[in-house]
Amino acid sequence: MLIVQKYGGTSVANVERIKAVAGRVSAAAKEGHKVVVVVSAMSGETDKLIGLAQQISPNPGEREMDLLLSSGERVTSALTAMAVEALGHRAMAFTGRQMGIITDTVHTKARIERITGERARKALQDGYVIVVAGFQGITEDDDVTTLGRGGSDLSAVAIASALEADLCEIYTDVDGVYTTDPNIVPEARKLNKISYEEMLELASLGAKVLQTRSVEFAMKYEVPVVVRSSFNNNPGTLVTREDKDMEKVVVSGVAYDKNQSKITVMAVPDTPGIAARLFKPIADANIVVDMIVQNVSSGGNATDISFTVPKTDSKKALTLTEKIARELEAKGVDLREDIAKISVVGVGMRTHSGVAAQMFDTLAGHGINIMMIGTSEIKVSCVIGLKYTELAVRVLHEAFGLSG
Amino acid sequence: MLIVQKYGGTSVANVERIKAVAGRVSAAAKEGHKVVVVVSAMSGETDKLIGLAQQISPNPGEREMDLLLSSGERVTSALTAMAVEALGHRAMAFTGRQMGIITDTVHTKARIERITGERARKALQDGYVIVVAGFQGITEDDDVTTLGRGGSDLSAVAIASALEADLCEIYTDVDGVYTTDPNIVPEARKLNKISYEEMLELASLGAKVLQTRSVEFAMKYEVPVVVRSSFNNNPGTLVTREDKDMEKVVVSGVAYDKNQSKITVMAVPDTPGIAARLFKPIADANIVVDMIVQNVSSGGNATDISFTVPKTDSKKALTLTEKIARELEAKGVDLREDIAKISVVGVGMRTHSGVAAQMFDTLAGHGINIMMIGTSEIKVSCVIGLKYTELAVRVLHEAFGLSG
Repeated sequence: MLIVQKYGGTSVANVERIKAVAGRVSAAAKEGHKVVVVVSAMSGETDKLIGLAQQISPNPGEREMDLLLSSGERVTSALTAMAVEALGHRAMAFTGRQMGIITDTVHTKARIERITGERARKALQDGYVIVVAGFQGITEDDDVTTLGRGGSDLSAVAIASALEADLCEIYTDVDGVYTTDPNIVPEARKLNKISYEEMLELASLGAKVLQTRSVEFAMKYEVPVVVRSSFNNNPGTLVTREDKDMEKVVVSGVAYDKNQSKITVMAVPDTPGIAARLFKPIADANIVVDMIVQNVSSGGNATDISFTVPKTDSKKALTLTEKIARELEAKGVDLREDIAKISVVGVGMRTHSGVAAQMFDTLAGHGINIMMIGTSEIKVSCVIGLKYTELAVRVLHEAFGLSG
Repeated sequence: MLIVQKYGGTSVANVERIKAVAGRVSAAAKEGHKVVVVVSAMSGETDKLIGLAQQISPNPGEREMDLLLSSGERVTSALTAMAVEALGHRAMAFTGRQMGIITDTVHTKARIERITGERARKALQDGYVIVVAGFQGITEDDDVTTLGRGGSDLSAVAIASALEADLCEIYTDVDGVYTTDPNIVPEARKLNKISYEEMLELASLGAKVLQTRSVEFAMKYEVPVVVRSSFNNNPGTLVTREDKDMEKVVVSGVAYDKNQSKITVMAVPDTPGIAARLFKPIADANIVVDMIVQNVSSGGNATDISFTVPKTDSKKALTLTEKIARELEAKGVDLREDIAKISVVGVGMRTHSGVAAQMFDTLAGHGINIMMIGTSEIKVSCVIGLKYTELAVRVLHEAFGLSG
């Protein structure tokens, strides 16, 4: 088998952990597998570099930011290759460029356009273990790019797809995907299997085990992904295509996201084309809008529009929104950062009704006010006050019988 | 003017120092100069990375070592470019690859073969300050290489030559080149001007202000180099072509080198071709042999051969030498690490005699035994016991009237 193994920051946090990773890689190689390893920066390293940049400049250039941030993964890839070699294998470290990871030019959150991977294929044939610096690529113009937070997951899945690997293992510091955050609900249960769609909802909602874009990528190219711990030998959670078994369960998990802010544009004159004028500049600024809700305002001929954006982008989004709100002659713009989004997710919702009603009822029963509601085929999300996050997760986890 | 400014590790040691460097760069740009900045890793960073590698593997692969070590300069180049931009200039960070620094494939001590520099020329024309990661290049096969200790000096001089810069300023933590180490002789005097040849002897002998290969390069391509401090505005020392003024001074400086070891092959049968057989494998291992002395041994038909190698390579050189010594049926091999090399240097020696005699006399007068002697047109070197280093430097500095 050709296996891609990705190790996150805590899995390569220090020399001992890197040696442990090498041991795991060596075991897979000794079983006869070809192994491609993708590594993140040592934990804390990327934040340290960001801290340095912020001390230097309030608004550092993104091209230089990418050059800066990409160095952490290069260090880990070199060290990990050395550790694998020290165990008697032949190993080669590859940068994103040497792996042939070509991206677009959107610095700090670039998208992978293609992976050439010629040199890697040759090295694998020659019996090398390959250790790739995750999180990074290169533009056609030879500039270094990074793939955004958690981008090493995407590197791993994309490499697995490009090399037609049989399996992509994402090693992290948790045992797999849980029905909810075990730090909030100790009875949370590990899922053995989950569909790409569910994982996508859980990841995008803050379950933090697997980066959203990497799940999208895995789904699109049907890369089988296993999320598991690098600290033990537990089997982890397989993320794969939806199957019949999964539909029997109505709700698979409860997710929360504290990293969103809510922006409301009040009393916008209700004429066609408003939403487009409002959201185009935000999209142009590469800010990802998550939920959008529009209500007719008390006035009647005006409307309130609320939407959520990542907290890191909230100031930028607010500035843009205020500018457009003035042009649209809206009454005002309101930013709320003390919110959280709570979601219940499950492919079973496609064939079962009443999940939304039960969710609203449960929250109301505990005095939790709902500010926004959003739904998809397989999830229901509510924006609530930040301070109710843990309470909401606990009562929903219990209400949907997830403790098993 | 087009100026290349190189800043060493202590000059970019932290955020404050990087901002100070940016201020200096900004001042030069405001005077109307085009500026190319070359930076080292923040001081301590390279040693930290080497330490990590040594904890991972007793014998880390050199290709991976280069990938590892090159990351330090990338960090500094990105941060420095940000700092220059924060002062209102346009700035771009360049990696060795983006600068087009093509080297041979001798990892960890690669030689620069050529610098394409197209992108840099374009960026300079467009009004950018360019900040290049020093110490690194790339092979034709796209692998990262490093240029050895002090390699950022070489990067700077080679870039100055490739871009036909008017001046190459090497910023460091000392005011320039001194007649000897001021830590040993407080009366040591800063030289305003020195010839490439003298600088070469001083650098290779351990004066530590400018890496040897960078001086060779500057001499070959006649790049005017100024060595000066980034901590003040003193004018520094100009390293340039020899001129008439210089010849008036017999001895320009006294240098010492504690980083050499002495290997002696005892009683080798004295037949033609011995030296070649002995030194070829050492050269093939990329170990630089400095002094070589051959004496006829007491026996008559056998000879002793002594030579010095860098201390870091002494174990490797010893192993190689022992192997050849057995083949040559020599009596034995002796390694001494407790030695130092003391040298007096000056282009004036070409026209003045008696320097060597005065040196031997001075050392003898203070009871310092001489183990090896080597001479060139413009220097005399003696290998002595390590513990006499400081004494020898002091008495020679005084004997040749260098305190001025």
